[in-house]
Amino acid sequence: MEIFSGLFGRGDVAAEVDDRAWGRAMLDFEAALAQALAEVGLAPAATAAEIASVCAEIELDFAALGAGAGKDGTPVPALLRAVGEQLSEQALAELHRGATSQDVVDTAAMLVARRALVPLLADLDAAAAAAADLAERHRGTPAAGRTLLQQALPSTFGLKAANWLGGLDEARERLATVSRQRLAVQLGGAAGSMASLGEHGPSVLAALARRLDLSEPTMPWHSNRVRPAELAAALGVAAGAAGKVGVDVALLAQTEVGEVAEGDGGGSSTLPHKRNPVAAIAAIACSRRTPALVATMIGAMGGELERSAGAWQAESETLSDLLVLTGSAAAAARSLLEGLEVDRERMRANLDLTSGLLMAEALTTALTPRLGRARAHGLVEAAARNAAESGKPLADAAIEVAEIEAVLGREGIDAALDPASYLGSTDALIDRALFAYRRSLEEE
Amino acid sequence: MEIFSGLFGRGDVAAEVDDRAWGRAMLDFEAALAQALAEVGLAPAATAAEIASVCAEIELDFAALGAGAGKDGTPVPALLRAVGEQLSEQALAELHRGATSQDVVDTAAMLVARRALVPLLADLDAAAAAAADLAERHRGTPAAGRTLLQQALPSTFGLKAANWLGGLDEARERLATVSRQRLAVQLGGAAGSMASLGEHGPSVLAALARRLDLSEPTMPWHSNRVRPAELAAALGVAAGAAGKVGVDVALLAQTEVGEVAEGDGGGSSTLPHKRNPVAAIAAIACSRRTPALVATMIGAMGGELERSAGAWQAESETLSDLLVLTGSAAAAARSLLEGLEVDRERMRANLDLTSGLLMAEALTTALTPRLGRARAHGLVEAAARNAAESGKPLADAAIEVAEIEAVLGREGIDAALDPASYLGSTDALIDRALFAYRRSLEEE
Amino acid sequence: MEIFSGLFGRGDVAAEVDDRAWGRAMLDFEAALAQALAEVGLAPAATAAEIASVCAEIELDFAALGAGAGKDGTPVPALLRAVGEQLSEQALAELHRGATSQDVVDTAAMLVARRALVPLLADLDAAAAAAADLAERHRGTPAAGRTLLQQALPSTFGLKAANWLGGLDEARERLATVSRQRLAVQLGGAAGSMASLGEHGPSVLAALARRLDLSEPTMPWHSNRVRPAELAAALGVAAGAAGKVGVDVALLAQTEVGEVAEGDGGGSSTLPHKRNPVAAIAAIACSRRTPALVATMIGAMGGELERSAGAWQAESETLSDLLVLTGSAAAAARSLLEGLEVDRERMRANLDLTSGLLMAEALTTALTPRLGRARAHGLVEAAARNAAESGKPLADAAIEVAEIEAVLGREGIDAALDPASYLGSTDALIDRALFAYRRSLEEE
Amino acid sequence: MEIFSGLFGRGDVAAEVDDRAWGRAMLDFEAALAQALAEVGLAPAATAAEIASVCAEIELDFAALGAGAGKDGTPVPALLRAVGEQLSEQALAELHRGATSQDVVDTAAMLVARRALVPLLADLDAAAAAAADLAERHRGTPAAGRTLLQQALPSTFGLKAANWLGGLDEARERLATVSRQRLAVQLGGAAGSMASLGEHGPSVLAALARRLDLSEPTMPWHSNRVRPAELAAALGVAAGAAGKVGVDVALLAQTEVGEVAEGDGGGSSTLPHKRNPVAAIAAIACSRRTPALVATMIGAMGGELERSAGAWQAESETLSDLLVLTGSAAAAARSLLEGLEVDRERMRANLDLTSGLLMAEALTTALTPRLGRARAHGLVEAAARNAAESGKPLADAAIEVAEIEAVLGREGIDAALDPASYLGSTDALIDRALFAYRRSLEEE
Repeated sequence: MEIFSGLFGRGDVAAEVDDRAWGRAMLDFEAALAQALAEVGLAPAATAAEIASVCAEIELDFAALGAGAGKDGTPVPALLRAVGEQLSEQALAELHRGATSQDVVDTAAMLVARRALVPLLADLDAAAAAAADLAERHRGTPAAGRTLLQQALPSTFGLKAANWLGGLDEARERLATVSRQRLAVQLGGAAGSMASLGEHGPSVLAALARRLDLSEPTMPWHSNRVRPAELAAALGVAAGAAGKVGVDVALLAQTEVGEVAEGDGGGSSTLPHKRNPVAAIAAIACSRRTPALVATMIGAMGGELERSAGAWQAESETLSDLLVLTGSAAAAARSLLEGLEVDRERMRANLDLTSGLLMAEALTTALTPRLGRARAHGLVEAAARNAAESGKPLADAAIEVAEIEAVLGREGIDAALDPASYLGSTDALIDRALFAYRRSLEEE
Repeated sequence: MEIFSGLFGRGDVAAEVDDRAWGRAMLDFEAALAQALAEVGLAPAATAAEIASVCAEIELDFAALGAGAGKDGTPVPALLRAVGEQLSEQALAELHRGATSQDVVDTAAMLVARRALVPLLADLDAAAAAAADLAERHRGTPAAGRTLLQQALPSTFGLKAANWLGGLDEARERLATVSRQRLAVQLGGAAGSMASLGEHGPSVLAALARRLDLSEPTMPWHSNRVRPAELAAALGVAAGAAGKVGVDVALLAQTEVGEVAEGDGGGSSTLPHKRNPVAAIAAIACSRRTPALVATMIGAMGGELERSAGAWQAESETLSDLLVLTGSAAAAARSLLEGLEVDRERMRANLDLTSGLLMAEALTTALTPRLGRARAHGLVEAAARNAAESGKPLADAAIEVAEIEAVLGREGIDAALDPASYLGSTDALIDRALFAYRRSLEEE
Repeated sequence: MEIFSGLFGRGDVAAEVDDRAWGRAMLDFEAALAQALAEVGLAPAATAAEIASVCAEIELDFAALGAGAGKDGTPVPALLRAVGEQLSEQALAELHRGATSQDVVDTAAMLVARRALVPLLADLDAAAAAAADLAERHRGTPAAGRTLLQQALPSTFGLKAANWLGGLDEARERLATVSRQRLAVQLGGAAGSMASLGEHGPSVLAALARRLDLSEPTMPWHSNRVRPAELAAALGVAAGAAGKVGVDVALLAQTEVGEVAEGDGGGSSTLPHKRNPVAAIAAIACSRRTPALVATMIGAMGGELERSAGAWQAESETLSDLLVLTGSAAAAARSLLEGLEVDRERMRANLDLTSGLLMAEALTTALTPRLGRARAHGLVEAAARNAAESGKPLADAAIEVAEIEAVLGREGIDAALDPASYLGSTDALIDRALFAYRRSLEEE
Repeated sequence: MEIFSGLFGRGDVAAEVDDRAWGRAMLDFEAALAQALAEVGLAPAATAAEIASVCAEIELDFAALGAGAGKDGTPVPALLRAVGEQLSEQALAELHRGATSQDVVDTAAMLVARRALVPLLADLDAAAAAAADLAERHRGTPAAGRTLLQQALPSTFGLKAANWLGGLDEARERLATVSRQRLAVQLGGAAGSMASLGEHGPSVLAALARRLDLSEPTMPWHSNRVRPAELAAALGVAAGAAGKVGVDVALLAQTEVGEVAEGDGGGSSTLPHKRNPVAAIAAIACSRRTPALVATMIGAMGGELERSAGAWQAESETLSDLLVLTGSAAAAARSLLEGLEVDRERMRANLDLTSGLLMAEALTTALTPRLGRARAHGLVEAAARNAAESGKPLADAAIEVAEIEAVLGREGIDAALDPASYLGSTDALIDRALFAYRRSLEEE
């Protein structure tokens, strides 16, 4: 709906999957089929040219097509009637030859997906690039790692960004693979046997695939819905990866956390202090709607015999919704990441909220070489309990423990409790993430 | 989408949930709120009248609202700006007073649902009435009962229709109850405390509910999403009941079964013998899409704190889709049932397909009083196996078994194997179903 | 699985839906059916007693029943064989008379649900009671209301608890209604016609319903799956209400928020400062799994003809999972709420985090009577912007605005900016919630 | 549940994902981690050997682990306590070093999946092989192609089987790829930074991956859930492909169609003529449950920060369920296809049900070269209408049309109406499907 398009229609995907785009793709099928028939010698070139010309120029009446779908179960017969009215008798005889309605709708779905994936992948790409940039720039920005919504250990903001990058990049890679390899032309005729093309079926199929730049399938896939299911799953996973960025940003932007803010976060008319994480919310909202749609698409695999009565029909709009929502999630993640404001001071301040308790594991690690892990763990646990109960900093509680004091001294304790000293492999991991990302870009 | 509206936009619901309908409902909220404020003495009556008048006449720019939603996270601020531009300064100061964006969207959702449920329930009603009519007319039309897609026992077509009636009626009843009791106004202000209305919150709430003819909730339900989840579930169940009719009709209309046909089944352009069960397919396709949407709505209950960041936002379009799809399923089931052609001869012929094996249980039942159930079962099983293997009718195989012949004789065997003699309580059950249906109508 | 039972098998529901419970319920059906047959004079009382006695004492071999389900599609024939081996020939002849396998499984599902709902509703009740207690005790505890994860306005912790109460109570009420009204016995025979009971079908049905204390359905509902779908939906909504409590608690327990803690929150072996909100996590995890299961149940409504080939069968385990997960969510919410530790000081401190910006709306409201709403809004917005940019408290920024100072003075400004002064109708709303809750208890 | 295991626990997957299997996988992680630490010089070899030995021999108490999960949120601390009790102090100090609970559960999930996929892929392989065999053997067996459950055109049973093969093979290929490439070890420590391993994190990670024969991830994927989501999707698609076989077989096995039967279809105790398609039903029932579980897994991608509070936890049992159900669907499809009985005569007889109307398109095609397509279509349509209304065979109706008679004569009409003459590219398509299948086998 237009009224909610700022949440669910961000980016440029929506325009690629609307009535106009579906109509265009259906006409492209009919034009390419006529030309493929001509190419293999089954139809005169002039006829093919006439059909292609009408298909290129006709203005469709979508309400009429919709009404036709109510009568015929698909909009294709109404579309053929509309095209046919503008054709010579000879061309009319060749229009749609060898094809059935499902061939048109399935091929159109693949064309729609292919075209929608261009801006969608571009937004995912840009989101990944922005995450990579954040990972690089903030590889040395300490920030709390939080598990179960509790501060757990120090990490860096760069590692958080690298994690987003990983998800976006993996999801994008799978989606790009599906786009390249799994979007196939459909041509089977009424029962998938290409009966009315006689022995020429496979050559028409091949020509059609070439003309539409879609894969040539081994067989018609009327009733084998692995392709649309895989496409749907890849979209759902991509929306999930974008949504994950939104979830983290919304949490990090909380009033009480305040580590990031959206560059152009929405203000509130009545609450002047609020800076709402609108793009994050859009990404989250989209990603909450997509998983169920994937379920619908996978469920539609169980259609009946050579063309199902209901399952197949349920795919078209569901796939459109998935494309729009995933595209919107990707666009939201992109704008979010490109404009993200990062507050290093607040990150540092939050690391101190637990008065050093966050660093208890680090203190244990520092004591282990001398005391053994079990002993070190016991001493630190006692000191931490003391600190938590008394409210004093862990450093102070630790120095009171003679054994800890003896091993590390005040300086050693302070060093062990410095978050920046306990970042493990964050730097190496960021390098790995950036390397993997760049390699994945090159491979395409 | 318009292009598939014959499948997914049947009936009159779609027009009640589009941009226009949502915009109208939002404006109705603002008008009613202003009037409620005036009613309890918080605003001048003239101001309320001015606001109501502008809200009644303004033409909204949905693209602008959509863009606003992208900036603010909801279309409401943009809508308020548009309305505000046409108001006097005094009226502007009262516009939306005490409300927050979510109050507008939530109340609008309930209004949209209430209005959409009018045609939706009417279609469900009419579908139930048509099923009741079929149940009555075909109470004496023997037809095979099929379990696991195998003929099991004779039944009547009336009992099948009574079963559809039961599902449609129960689903309609629940949906009507939800419509009457659970569609509530929302008014809580920014945090659900109705803070800016001071002590007048509850009285404004009550006045608003009365004006919009929605329930008055105990509390604002910003963050308690039981209501939308229950509404969604009732819609999903209704779509399921309509879809069930579609499934059965599509199966009974199979070329090899041929017991029913849609009155205006779609023809196939290239396959002249086909009469496609288009309305059944529409009902099925809609009902395949709705369960996942219910899951999205129930999942949205887990939103964060006083207004969630993404879960709540995911509701609006999902609810719209549920209304449209359930409405379309109901309209399809209605037209399907109202025009259904029933082929009694074919039903009778199909009962004979198993050469009497379908009646084996009846033969056992007839023998049981004399032979005991175990013995009767054993003898009939042997005769049935003989019949199945040899291809001869069960009657002939049974007469060859001396013990069976001795108890029943040829006449007794033939009588026992007559499908019309083994219909159990079908008649009584149809009466019960019709009685329950008529009572449920009266109660409303 | 046992290994994860602390998350997904909390409370006492799991024991009511395991193999043993299903076996017990199936045997209860067969015993009650035999007794119902005797009651209406279709079988000797002694036979019924014998069947009931064997059903009461037999130890089932679930692996054998499982193997039987692989051969027959349901475990019932294997169960009947097991029971039959212990019966006299006469009793064997009456066992299961008039019934089909689906009658057994459907009735067993309803019995399992009825029995599982006892502890489940008890846990929901207790969770609601604990929420009511928190609402009462903390009606005067100011706490930030947060929308989109940003502090929005002051509220009270009591209002948050009242909101949880509302969700739990509404969900419980619906579930209790479903339990009382919609759990029905199933008896239809092979095709739903109760053929082998002759004219006695309805009286056996009524007797069976009385004996099992389940509703008597209008008709067999073999193929009308509104009942299980409604049950599933009510369970899903209840899990959602419990999960909502978990979400809020996990967020309020964040290290940076720290307003609540679980009474017996799980410690971390390596991170001594952490106090993990384990019950909250359990409630959330359960409620993330339930919506999809509801979708499966609603989807199963679309089964084929008199007994579906796959859809119906998919219900049993899905319903079991729904019961266990909803029960576990309810038990988690209960233990969470009963033991919740509330930190009033932290709540108060968090209200001050925005240096008064949270109260900007209150300041506007205080200025409105004198300045008009638009002027008041503009002045406060400017002061708030100044405060946000300079870091100074809003009170200080406000006093610098001559017009504000003139209207309210320092005292008036401070009063307006006191969170406790801007709680709107929180108190009245809590009263309403408590009243509604108590009334709902009395009604049962 | 054991009681329904014949439907949902077919094949050998269930034993690979039960408590025992999860416990085993967790212990394997701890053993391999200790050995990896020793390998890179962080722990003594003897200690590693001791840990590995205890892990290999310990008997776990799953109820205790479950209780531990209720306290700690995961069963890992309880497992570590159990293992630790059997270790020397020195070994205890090295146990689980550098790891966090999620590392154990995530790696265990991948090991469980890897192991479960062995029998699962074997069953999918065997199902595909059986479908390939049917495609080959029945390439010349004419059978009706049915669209929207109406006979559409003749096809061959071999082409139906080739279609199943295509789905099974594509789904298997993706699942095998996921198994080979995407099942990765997890090691990140409490916040994903591998902090307590200092600079050695990556080398321990690499050693661990080698030892467990899992992929080495670029980064810890604690909070990047693309991997489990992709695994879930591939499982859901595989279940869908298996379920599709079940749907078609159940439909072809209908009493009124009778073209196939399951080799060991379940008998009905009371209905001797029934031969229930039990394996088909099992495949369908499983595939009706899996799509929703995929949705849950994709939804779980939106977990919070470095370890989510509920979303992550929801994965373990959901993934287990997906593995079991997909495995059961694959095993059902396998046994179904391996034992399928095909009734060529019935297929041929069903082709004649429409008295030749099924061949109307073929007649049009035969007339087109001489009459042009539009004219041919019009004439055949009229003849078909005449045939349908009068009940006479299409051949007879066609011969009455002078123009048709003139072009084709009786012989030509009969030839055109022979189903075997209008099979289009079925043969070539079967060859392509078999070729693709064999190549996919070789590639592995």
